[in-house]
Amino acid sequence: MANSEYEYVKREFEFDRRLPASNWIVVRIDGCHFHRFSKIHAFEKPNDENALRLMNACATSMLEKFPDIVFAYGVSDEYSFVFREETEFYQRRESKILSICVSYFTSVYGMKWKDFFPNKDLREPPYFDGRVVCYPNMKTIHDYLAWRQVDCHINNHYNTCFWMLVKSGKTEKEAQQTLKGTFSEDKNELLSQQFQVNYEDEPAMFRKGSSVYRDKVETKVKTDDYGNPIKRIRLAITVSNLDIIGPEFWGKHQYILQEDMSM
Amino acid sequence: MANSEYEYVKREFEFDRRLPASNWIVVRIDGCHFHRFSKIHAFEKPNDENALRLMNACATSMLEKFPDIVFAYGVSDEYSFVFREETEFYQRRESKILSICVSYFTSVYGMKWKDFFPNKDLREPPYFDGRVVCYPNMKTIHDYLAWRQVDCHINNHYNTCFWMLVKSGKTEKEAQQTLKGTFSEDKNELLSQQFQVNYEDEPAMFRKGSSVYRDKVETKVKTDDYGNPIKRIRLAITVSNLDIIGPEFWGKHQYILQEDMSM
Amino acid sequence: MANSEYEYVKREFEFDRRLPASNWIVVRIDGCHFHRFSKIHAFEKPNDENALRLMNACATSMLEKFPDIVFAYGVSDEYSFVFREETEFYQRRESKILSICVSYFTSVYGMKWKDFFPNKDLREPPYFDGRVVCYPNMKTIHDYLAWRQVDCHINNHYNTCFWMLVKSGKTEKEAQQTLKGTFSEDKNELLSQQFQVNYEDEPAMFRKGSSVYRDKVETKVKTDDYGNPIKRIRLAITVSNLDIIGPEFWGKHQYILQEDMSM
Amino acid sequence: MANSEYEYVKREFEFDRRLPASNWIVVRIDGCHFHRFSKIHAFEKPNDENALRLMNACATSMLEKFPDIVFAYGVSDEYSFVFREETEFYQRRESKILSICVSYFTSVYGMKWKDFFPNKDLREPPYFDGRVVCYPNMKTIHDYLAWRQVDCHINNHYNTCFWMLVKSGKTEKEAQQTLKGTFSEDKNELLSQQFQVNYEDEPAMFRKGSSVYRDKVETKVKTDDYGNPIKRIRLAITVSNLDIIGPEFWGKHQYILQEDMSM
Repeated sequence: MANSEYEYVKREFEFDRRLPASNWIVVRIDGCHFHRFSKIHAFEKPNDENALRLMNACATSMLEKFPDIVFAYGVSDEYSFVFREETEFYQRRESKILSICVSYFTSVYGMKWKDFFPNKDLREPPYFDGRVVCYPNMKTIHDYLAWRQVDCHINNHYNTCFWMLVKSGKTEKEAQQTLKGTFSEDKNELLSQQFQVNYEDEPAMFRKGSSVYRDKVETKVKTDDYGNPIKRIRLAITVSNLDIIGPEFWGKHQYILQEDMSM
Repeated sequence: MANSEYEYVKREFEFDRRLPASNWIVVRIDGCHFHRFSKIHAFEKPNDENALRLMNACATSMLEKFPDIVFAYGVSDEYSFVFREETEFYQRRESKILSICVSYFTSVYGMKWKDFFPNKDLREPPYFDGRVVCYPNMKTIHDYLAWRQVDCHINNHYNTCFWMLVKSGKTEKEAQQTLKGTFSEDKNELLSQQFQVNYEDEPAMFRKGSSVYRDKVETKVKTDDYGNPIKRIRLAITVSNLDIIGPEFWGKHQYILQEDMSM
Repeated sequence: MANSEYEYVKREFEFDRRLPASNWIVVRIDGCHFHRFSKIHAFEKPNDENALRLMNACATSMLEKFPDIVFAYGVSDEYSFVFREETEFYQRRESKILSICVSYFTSVYGMKWKDFFPNKDLREPPYFDGRVVCYPNMKTIHDYLAWRQVDCHINNHYNTCFWMLVKSGKTEKEAQQTLKGTFSEDKNELLSQQFQVNYEDEPAMFRKGSSVYRDKVETKVKTDDYGNPIKRIRLAITVSNLDIIGPEFWGKHQYILQEDMSM
Repeated sequence: MANSEYEYVKREFEFDRRLPASNWIVVRIDGCHFHRFSKIHAFEKPNDENALRLMNACATSMLEKFPDIVFAYGVSDEYSFVFREETEFYQRRESKILSICVSYFTSVYGMKWKDFFPNKDLREPPYFDGRVVCYPNMKTIHDYLAWRQVDCHINNHYNTCFWMLVKSGKTEKEAQQTLKGTFSEDKNELLSQQFQVNYEDEPAMFRKGSSVYRDKVETKVKTDDYGNPIKRIRLAITVSNLDIIGPEFWGKHQYILQEDMSM
């Protein structure tokens, strides 16, 4: 029995959209209704370290599973995954790439939950939305990541102040009023004068977000006949909380986004 | 601190694609590498009843969560979700709709796993891909669902024979050879003569797949002063295993896909 | 000599977008900088009959050339072409359909110019932009055409008043001020009281725009043996200036957009 | 009178697609049914010099009209236009860019026809199809142009042989047979031995196609007090028939595609 009578519904309505070659492909996923989700699961404010470590663990799983992801950057309930410029992952079909990334991340999030919250049951299904964006060159992919890290800073700076004010007795409304129109320096001053906190001493994971990538690590394999260590360089998936806006990180890790500059 | 320097990466590269109005939106999700996943978790062949019931439970959760899904049809590790013609779910933005459906389904699958497999731990993250397709009228959305159900029949008919042959001692290769080029009647004959099985007696869930929708159910609310029951009709999410190719089902459930035929 | 070294630029970057089946395809073209073009060529204001007739002649050529165009509607320097629902014109590839329609229309416009403006040379190349839109059912394609005709009325009503005021001695600025905030009735009153013009007596081509379609015309082929005429119905491309918003036109010309309502 | 009742047809069905930033935009137009068009207008075979010069004149008009076109390359009845990487031409809306380019080119073709064919009337409207493709970096835009020029060579080499054979008395079928399976060297040998033609002596416009761009030209403005010429460099739109595959041309004209390599 052939299925020909109805197969036109695929042929005439389903169209695969392929992403153009020579572009870095970014998949950015974002928690859906995580304001509510974090309340229900009593996340600490403004940052729940376990929740962030869970996100990082999921991102690490993504790099383990999908070798063409060369870099990931996460902050709060959001994570961006950068596929290498010439990836042929699912022939660059947009729907496949988007759905598979979002689904795998979600699945790992559920499975690893108990590792990070051993005493809390999942009370509602965590889920994420996602989008795919193409960036055609080094400058734009770098600026994309910088955009996310600047956003991380702006939000965390504000939230750090906001929750200190709330924890010190202000209502959320009062805290909002206090912060309205303040500049970066005002916030630093408020933190240091009112709470004796130097913002720069806050955990880097909160201030800088998390980057996941394959780092070159030196391993001592064995010693030679004279007792000298024989070392080998291998790539290991690493999570760090460094600045990725300035040139330093990318200077040291040029291999991550090595663009073919031929011609 | 404004983020203006980098925000161009959003403005000039991120484009939301909205789906055209007056079209039913179908999201079809499909298990990724479920051949391997079903082996690892020792699913019964050709159909694992618990695995199918888990899929149906996830689909039911989808209709509970997203009221604009009016119909869902599932078979094996695949499920199609039909959003009503004029849904404004996420302003009909394709990426949002796709990613949220796939992510929510995946999340529920993980959370409900232990309800259907109390004695099996998840050994690998289950994940799904997905796609979005628009159908512009009753005929095409009906034909889409018919296409899936015909596919269900073709595959299940073949698989039923194949696994009976294998369980009776043939190798997978021999079973394949035996079935090569057979027509529907040949398969029925093989089943009845060699295995005393009438294919029509196989469970409807295996032969017809599963439909999930809001059914009109009559509930006795209370009795009136004379002891007569007062009934009310309400919509209840239902799973059935009926034929959705012929006109009967749709004749009885016209309200599910009521198309505005004005003009 | 093979061209394989460079052919990747086609394979990996050129993607044909096909329009979904079972949708009417509308191509709407619009004069580029026709404000300037009409000044340079001294078009009469607010409507130049010859310029409109030239547009209609081009639209007629379109229907002659491309049989899958079932209806066209034009007003001012704009024309919409409706392809039949199931057309396979260039396999429904969007770029082909758009570029070919715009190019053919432009070419005919240039070639027929001298037929309508025998005493004026083209002083600048006339050119048009275009877009493609899909409409999934009778209601939406009808509403699309109604939208354009309502627009025609609004603009022509305003322009008729505006140019009468200007021709009567007002500056353009004064005319604008006079009309600011006026309703339809105000404009009618202004026309009748100040200029003794009944708007309904203005030429239908100006008020209603022009529709081009294949009309059923009766032709006397020959007479039979008793002298009675033998008539035949044939389709002839016709330009009319009728109302296409109300049900009358479409009731009489149902065959133009006959939608398959099966199921 | 507002048009609100019907305006939904625009809001819910018309979507502008914007092309991603930091990509060169190529519009390639191609004559429709020019096999027939060239026969009707008795073009010389395999190359009609006047027809090619007309194409080049149209391309020159394109660069004059649209300053963001930085390079054009044409062969036979096809022309590619390269917009600069960061052009904001019509906000990079695909439909606008495609339709306007095709329409303007077509219009100029019609208007300039008599300049190149003073003794031939246009007997049918010439028209073109078109497509838009984005290229994300120097290598790919260079390879795109190389692809077209290699194609030019392959086709012209073949056609030169084919028409020499036909003009020498062979039927078209025989000529085809003779050339079947021949390599480049075979064709050169055939030309030199049978027709005493050195392919390299054929006109460069036929062998290399035509490039249109703004070239730096030195103009003597005046002489200084000592009689020395004072020169100025200005950009002038130029048509040349050079090799654009090798590095020489691009080395000398780096300013044409100067990519911002910052970072």
